[in-house]
Amino acid sequence: MTMQITSKDFRVRKGDLVDLKKWPTMVDPVYRSKEHYHDLLTDHVSRLSVQQQLLYASNRHAVLLVFQAMDAAGKDGAIQHVMSGINPQGCQVFSFKHPSATELQHDFLWRTTRDLPERGRIGIFNRSYYEEVLIVRVHRDILMSEGLPDVPRHDKTLWRHRYRSISNLERHLHANGTRIVKFFLHLSKEEQRKRFLARIDEPEKNWKFSTADVEERKFWDHYMTAYEECLAATSTGHSPWYVVPADDKQNARLIVSQIVLDAFDDLKMSYPKTSEARRRELLMIRKQLEE
Amino acid sequence: MTMQITSKDFRVRKGDLVDLKKWPTMVDPVYRSKEHYHDLLTDHVSRLSVQQQLLYASNRHAVLLVFQAMDAAGKDGAIQHVMSGINPQGCQVFSFKHPSATELQHDFLWRTTRDLPERGRIGIFNRSYYEEVLIVRVHRDILMSEGLPDVPRHDKTLWRHRYRSISNLERHLHANGTRIVKFFLHLSKEEQRKRFLARIDEPEKNWKFSTADVEERKFWDHYMTAYEECLAATSTGHSPWYVVPADDKQNARLIVSQIVLDAFDDLKMSYPKTSEARRRELLMIRKQLEE
Repeated sequence: MTMQITSKDFRVRKGDLVDLKKWPTMVDPVYRSKEHYHDLLTDHVSRLSVQQQLLYASNRHAVLLVFQAMDAAGKDGAIQHVMSGINPQGCQVFSFKHPSATELQHDFLWRTTRDLPERGRIGIFNRSYYEEVLIVRVHRDILMSEGLPDVPRHDKTLWRHRYRSISNLERHLHANGTRIVKFFLHLSKEEQRKRFLARIDEPEKNWKFSTADVEERKFWDHYMTAYEECLAATSTGHSPWYVVPADDKQNARLIVSQIVLDAFDDLKMSYPKTSEARRRELLMIRKQLEE
Repeated sequence: MTMQITSKDFRVRKGDLVDLKKWPTMVDPVYRSKEHYHDLLTDHVSRLSVQQQLLYASNRHAVLLVFQAMDAAGKDGAIQHVMSGINPQGCQVFSFKHPSATELQHDFLWRTTRDLPERGRIGIFNRSYYEEVLIVRVHRDILMSEGLPDVPRHDKTLWRHRYRSISNLERHLHANGTRIVKFFLHLSKEEQRKRFLARIDEPEKNWKFSTADVEERKFWDHYMTAYEECLAATSTGHSPWYVVPADDKQNARLIVSQIVLDAFDDLKMSYPKTSEARRRELLMIRKQLEE
């Protein structure tokens, strides 16, 4: 018997406290074999492709998918495998690494706002404005480099203000047609260690390995605390967070694609209806083309 | 005796209802003669220029000046005369007219957000995101062309949501270092009529005249209602609106420049202090340069 993926099992409900130790990094896989995984993924991707065309044709909503995770959790792979069947004209991926000097001259939401998806498109943020309450929180020197005029005396106040800025932005975007789905790929520290070892041992993976990534492992617990508070403060009814068990890459991709499909279902899109007048016009043009 | 300009006389206090009929479009001028006007303006502009250099050197805050008004109220002239002494590298003016097709594919705050001023700079919005609760409110067909997925059944709800989006954005910007000052140049309908006539009668002003502007006069009362609700809903302690009597152009410019100067004073800026270590370093470099 095949397991079913139920989106809401992975959803952080609004107002809930989050203890990541209680959220699994591994669950029973929904696939029985490698072939079965490929069949399931192919099915998901082709359904996503249909939904994306509908999104494009109806031109009412945009969809923003946000991916956050610790290093080696499989963000890039999930984006690649889940989104590879989609018309690239309707889908744009943006990766946010170190901000540029110009970007640092603006408020912390500015650089990602420029890259928000248009109506009719899917935008994917590989890392996002959420870094501003994650890595920036773990590494205070990054915060100090942001040129803020007034850093509140109590850090708690600063993060609370940032959560509020983010939630207000997301509410505004939702009200104006953007549907936001946020994924935290939840990896265990032990599985990360194995993946780093593989990046060292397998020459074709060496390029993925950076010494700095291992340095960041020292801050693991700080990161978990930052994620817990962030997920609790910014998961809302309209822009929910999903905690996706990520120790099994294949299973994580199937969960992500199912959640995206469910989000599309909620939009209840259909092709724009042709009015009677327009229909008559089209028939007239048809006649002219025939003559 | 010269009149003094007191910024707070023109300020809309947070939470106040606004009845524009009770706000003057003309007050006793602060200047006694044309020469006196020029002297006062020159003094204001040179002080503004000093403040702008401080803003640039301290690189902590940005300043955003928003100008809204009915046609022919003197927005362009105020921007030109008040800002002409300022180093253009530290000051950028953006005029927002009809949104482009790409801009309409985004939420209504997107296009202006891209042009927000960097730290250290003054940004001037000649019209702004406020058009989205002014002209868009007066002309419902513009709203319908914006491709919104869910237009609330009750218009009141839509405008309330937009006020909230705007206020939340401004609060976020303030918390992250941008000081926002908003001007409504308050013109009487009669003075607008005179200025339109001048645009027709004086050949060198013909280029400023557009037939559509006269058409908009029919919606005067609608606009006044839209302004009243907008000013009441979005004037806050941190991002206040000022209602500037605009029937006398010269006087309006002096009021605007005084209000901007007062806003700069509130920032209490000073040149960045040089640390002892940096001071020693500079002295060492000095020695090397002398040798």
